[in-house]
Amino acid sequence: MSDESGTADYQVSADDDAVHSSWDNDLEPVATVEPGDVVRFECRDATNGQLGPGSTAADIATLDVGPIHPLTGPIAIEGARPGDVLEVELVELEHHGWGQTLVLPGELELGLLADEFPEPALHVWEFEDGIARFVDGIEVPIDPFPGVIGVEPAEDGAHSTFPPRSVGGNLDIKHLTAGSTLSLPVAVEDALFSIGDCHATQGDGEVCGTGIEAPMTVTCRFDVRSESSIEQPRFETTGPFTPTGRDEPMYGTTGVGDDLMAAARTAIRQQIDHMQAERGLGRTEAYMLCSAAVDLKVSEAVNAPNWVVSAYLPEGIFPTE
Amino acid sequence: MSDESGTADYQVSADDDAVHSSWDNDLEPVATVEPGDVVRFECRDATNGQLGPGSTAADIATLDVGPIHPLTGPIAIEGARPGDVLEVELVELEHHGWGQTLVLPGELELGLLADEFPEPALHVWEFEDGIARFVDGIEVPIDPFPGVIGVEPAEDGAHSTFPPRSVGGNLDIKHLTAGSTLSLPVAVEDALFSIGDCHATQGDGEVCGTGIEAPMTVTCRFDVRSESSIEQPRFETTGPFTPTGRDEPMYGTTGVGDDLMAAARTAIRQQIDHMQAERGLGRTEAYMLCSAAVDLKVSEAVNAPNWVVSAYLPEGIFPTE
Repeated sequence: MSDESGTADYQVSADDDAVHSSWDNDLEPVATVEPGDVVRFECRDATNGQLGPGSTAADIATLDVGPIHPLTGPIAIEGARPGDVLEVELVELEHHGWGQTLVLPGELELGLLADEFPEPALHVWEFEDGIARFVDGIEVPIDPFPGVIGVEPAEDGAHSTFPPRSVGGNLDIKHLTAGSTLSLPVAVEDALFSIGDCHATQGDGEVCGTGIEAPMTVTCRFDVRSESSIEQPRFETTGPFTPTGRDEPMYGTTGVGDDLMAAARTAIRQQIDHMQAERGLGRTEAYMLCSAAVDLKVSEAVNAPNWVVSAYLPEGIFPTE
Repeated sequence: MSDESGTADYQVSADDDAVHSSWDNDLEPVATVEPGDVVRFECRDATNGQLGPGSTAADIATLDVGPIHPLTGPIAIEGARPGDVLEVELVELEHHGWGQTLVLPGELELGLLADEFPEPALHVWEFEDGIARFVDGIEVPIDPFPGVIGVEPAEDGAHSTFPPRSVGGNLDIKHLTAGSTLSLPVAVEDALFSIGDCHATQGDGEVCGTGIEAPMTVTCRFDVRSESSIEQPRFETTGPFTPTGRDEPMYGTTGVGDDLMAAARTAIRQQIDHMQAERGLGRTEAYMLCSAAVDLKVSEAVNAPNWVVSAYLPEGIFPTE
């Protein structure tokens, strides 16, 4: 039984029994639900609580990357069979008032410009009235989504939570906000769904390797469709496609080159140059702000041999004079 | 002298003297203007008039690709020196009521899925009240922009207009709409600016190789900045970032893989599958509609070894039942 107000049929707490840090189709489900059921998941932050609102960049040196990302689940959805589609409606995402953006060099070599940012960095964001606070009065509107959301793969064994796969996982699609519906290809009996690594928001690309990472409680409604199959995740969303949900001024930089990844790197490097020169940000601050708020778009991928990737910075996040 | 109503200091017609189909810093400028001047450029369509409102796919067989893309210019901007920035404000773009989207296999092998669409195809769009008409009552909102816009490169000789370069050219950035300002790095004395290949609109990615190609008249205001330099084009824009300029429902497909180009191909292939299954479009129609209206976003480029590119279809372009 459920209603639109968010009353859940099941509650999955983030205690140790329900938290795992790898995909493995041999994991025992922590609950079994039926199509139509609503489930409320407590999700730990991506560092599994190793870092918190009082942490600093110095704490990154002792970070154990093993528990990243702690996922809550899996839950079994009764009747979901390989080849079916699991529909996950994101009903509600509740944050706890803070989040963090990290630059994690070293072991993980995380980030589009990992080679240019060898030092660890951390910004703790405070959330208030729908915005997250950066430095210098910069305010980034937030609209939470789960970074990792998926079902167990058909392949046996333990699989890292870092790469996304055709069954979902670390998709980091910033538009999977409340009200959106994600469709996932079911690969094993009962689907075995897990979720975690929630972000308050993120730029398309998540360029420094982390969004605004935050512990959160996520309410989902499940459905199973057997009449059609899909090969990769699909979704329906109404955005927001800009921080304000309507057209607003953006500052764009471009990367022109014969490789999309290199073009994305160039576009972000130019954007960091711009923020440093025109907005007075430090280079690492600019890199983190790109990860939280700058969107990478593929402008063209057909004018051989050179493609264009553009990076869009919403100017409304900066304080007016 | 100029004012905001579009009165131009100079008018460059699309007669043969002012039209060229390659970049070459040895071209004689057709006019010399000063910073602050407003220039109105007549631009031919990308096929140089070989195809028109009455054309069909059969006409593509006899298309001569040599004159693609006819550009209007170059004009010299007095005082612009290598290392300066040329600012181009797009004041106004006037279409002629029609445009075309082409699938061009063969010699050009144009398109993200060129290998899967070996047959030529053509759709002629009629423009009315800010929309372009496709098949089955589908209406795509238009907001014109120049596909090719740039300055002459430092390298001597004739260069193809197909690839964009660090000095601009075939950028195909759909957000360079009226009101936007593009900054270009100046590489030769007096910049030598040309423009053409206008599009009524396009999806980010321009996946079939063409947008909604249309002859157009473009009014630009020029300025030169010497105090800072840039390595690649940059721009300021207010979009539109969705067809309506505000949040609206989108259907997203994903490509998950270890190469951004392959991921983009997968996302578009899934989107074509969706349009075929759920919207009753033919496969080639769906491919052309993707090129005109579907946006490719880099969802994440940091979760090694797999990246996610997503393709966003605005659902509002379809007729309501």
